Amino acid sequence: MSKTPPITRDEAQVLDAADPLGRCRALFTLPEGVIYLVGHSLGPATFSSLKRVGEAAGTEWSKGLVGSWNSAGWIDMAARVGDKIAPLIGAEPGDVAVCDSVSVNLFKLAAAALPLARSRSICVEDDEFPTDQYVAEGLAQLSSTLFRRLPAGSAMAALSEGCVLIKSAVNYRSGEIANMRSFERQAQASGGVVIWDLSHATGVVPVHLGEVQARFAAGCTYKYMNGGPGAPSFIFVRRDAASAVRNPIPGWLGHAAPFAFSKDYQPADGVLRFIAGTPGILSLAALDGALDAFEDVTLTDALEKARVLGDLCLLCGAEAGLLPASPDRSVRGGHVSLRHENGYAIVRALAAEGVMADFRTPDTIRFGLSPLFLSYTEVWEAMDRLATIMEERRWDQDHFKVQAKVT
Amino acid sequence: MSKTPPITRDEAQVLDAADPLGRCRALFTLPEGVIYLVGHSLGPATFSSLKRVGEAAGTEWSKGLVGSWNSAGWIDMAARVGDKIAPLIGAEPGDVAVCDSVSVNLFKLAAAALPLARSRSICVEDDEFPTDQYVAEGLAQLSSTLFRRLPAGSAMAALSEGCVLIKSAVNYRSGEIANMRSFERQAQASGGVVIWDLSHATGVVPVHLGEVQARFAAGCTYKYMNGGPGAPSFIFVRRDAASAVRNPIPGWLGHAAPFAFSKDYQPADGVLRFIAGTPGILSLAALDGALDAFEDVTLTDALEKARVLGDLCLLCGAEAGLLPASPDRSVRGGHVSLRHENGYAIVRALAAEGVMADFRTPDTIRFGLSPLFLSYTEVWEAMDRLATIMEERRWDQDHFKVQAKVT
Repeated sequence: MSKTPPITRDEAQVLDAADPLGRCRALFTLPEGVIYLVGHSLGPATFSSLKRVGEAAGTEWSKGLVGSWNSAGWIDMAARVGDKIAPLIGAEPGDVAVCDSVSVNLFKLAAAALPLARSRSICVEDDEFPTDQYVAEGLAQLSSTLFRRLPAGSAMAALSEGCVLIKSAVNYRSGEIANMRSFERQAQASGGVVIWDLSHATGVVPVHLGEVQARFAAGCTYKYMNGGPGAPSFIFVRRDAASAVRNPIPGWLGHAAPFAFSKDYQPADGVLRFIAGTPGILSLAALDGALDAFEDVTLTDALEKARVLGDLCLLCGAEAGLLPASPDRSVRGGHVSLRHENGYAIVRALAAEGVMADFRTPDTIRFGLSPLFLSYTEVWEAMDRLATIMEERRWDQDHFKVQAKVT
Repeated sequence: MSKTPPITRDEAQVLDAADPLGRCRALFTLPEGVIYLVGHSLGPATFSSLKRVGEAAGTEWSKGLVGSWNSAGWIDMAARVGDKIAPLIGAEPGDVAVCDSVSVNLFKLAAAALPLARSRSICVEDDEFPTDQYVAEGLAQLSSTLFRRLPAGSAMAALSEGCVLIKSAVNYRSGEIANMRSFERQAQASGGVVIWDLSHATGVVPVHLGEVQARFAAGCTYKYMNGGPGAPSFIFVRRDAASAVRNPIPGWLGHAAPFAFSKDYQPADGVLRFIAGTPGILSLAALDGALDAFEDVTLTDALEKARVLGDLCLLCGAEAGLLPASPDRSVRGGHVSLRHENGYAIVRALAAEGVMADFRTPDTIRFGLSPLFLSYTEVWEAMDRLATIMEERRWDQDHFKVQAKVT
């Protein structure tokens, strides 16, 4: 089924004409003249999302006031939006909620999982997203647990010792997809527990939490799900696992009877016990609207398209003198990385020509191939501009060659 | 300086004519025909807040895309909005950030304070807001710390034993104000630590964190600050205390160099280390706009007005047959509670006549006297309607006498 990357603009146009996702572009408010290869960092706004925010603020809050907790369904919104995410990650409805940030959710899940693991240790590989490493270390310090930062690639061995492992389904730099099924098998065989960080996967890579028998996961919604800047995280706990664990940050909204205002905590059923405080309704509304774009989207189509586009970037990038830093398409998600010692200047030169990409210090350029709004022709055009920038050394100008901001 | 409560409508109108806060009502989008006595639960929208949300979604996100992290200042927004809150709580600029929920922030602060306390125990009184109790218990379980749920009124004694105490500045039911200075003195003398929950205080009660030498506080922004449904919490850590403590949920945005994406965590300066994940920008924008209403507001004026209105409610409520459950004005914040066995039916009957109040099971009616948008005449009118409802037993109808929802 895999297609070869398009080489000519005409070939790209042929792919666009046959693209089952081509209709989605009209859902987005992307400004003219921008080729947005940063959907893996912050997805763009959809019309539906802006409309929902407007309603939530201008009608539900402004006119409905506190009554909107019931009349507009705010009170169930964390669960209802979770139900919209469930099919994108292969979860049962009712097993996903939306609340807090990914950092906080990873913390809650790892803390909850500690009593289930055979050995009291938390492990994270050292090429994982930094927050995942920090959160594991912070939790370990607080809970008198051993923290181990593992060399990249050694997580499976650590898992065999029965630890709690925080693991990304898609690596934030390389885009490499983890074999979730193998990790879960190892966890089951060894008494370990995997907490999945689905941040760079959800909305572009088909994830099958149910099939692989995953118990715990959280992920970001403002990347490929286009939920808006700082949109709340989702959290997944398989129903049978939820009843056996505690939320270390219990709050009133995760109580079985929130309006009883009882001094004794009785957890709500399932994943809902992992809700703590009042969710940010306006941010949640933006996400709610954004998820409409996924109606009738088949994620296998999405991933296939992202991989063809990724191949195009890797191929053209290499021809232009950049070093590919992502794996083969068969194990690759929605973004690709390439390296160049002048990476930051190149990203700035691309931006000056309308191509937005991102940079990760010290030398990595990431292209996000978000398949719902990007066309093959656009990405072809972006790579054409990259070729020109490299050929003519357009990046080699003082105003591009500044130090990348790290603070 | 204290005024007696207005008894006649004419007297209320005289007070309105002289009200230094009277000009603020025009900032709010409150619908016609509603007397909104629920500002202590969810503050109403201001025009400025709706405008900021519209800009953040429709311009900054939709047009500026990921570039708005710099161009629209999203990256510093948690600190910048914190700086707007600082003067309302007597804190230095730079010592307040806005992130996460109150539940999560109380957890972070109590965990951070544990190593500072002389005895490894966390205490909360049993009349505190339930979440505060749950969070303390959850943290204690995770960190092998003693949790003590104290009888109401015994916190000072527990503090003298050197515990970590989570304490509300204003009680969520009675509206009673705690003597913050006394608690802090006791903490200093005994090696205890107070974590202040300012949720029901901020925006109506002048709080002087600096003067009373408080070290840790968090609070809600969607009550008297009108930040919007589920608006993010603020968190305060005094600068010298911050450098001595750890955030147990460290995240990339609380790192000293967030864009270095270093695997080793180096905390940012001061309170900023307590930021973890990416803040919800749309919810933060609503709060940012809402805080504009506090420009030129003197909180002593606000509290004085709220107290006069509270006296009016307590007096008229008692005359109508309700049992006052709030203290004298000298130690009372912005809301008052009254009890009645048919409280829920009374609240529903009030709503049917355009007066919104809230109910807390089993029998408590709360009136929030948010002084920026309420007029004396409106509250007089609300109490007049209450008198009629009680006199004519209008609440005694089947459609009002349903069971209060607790789940």
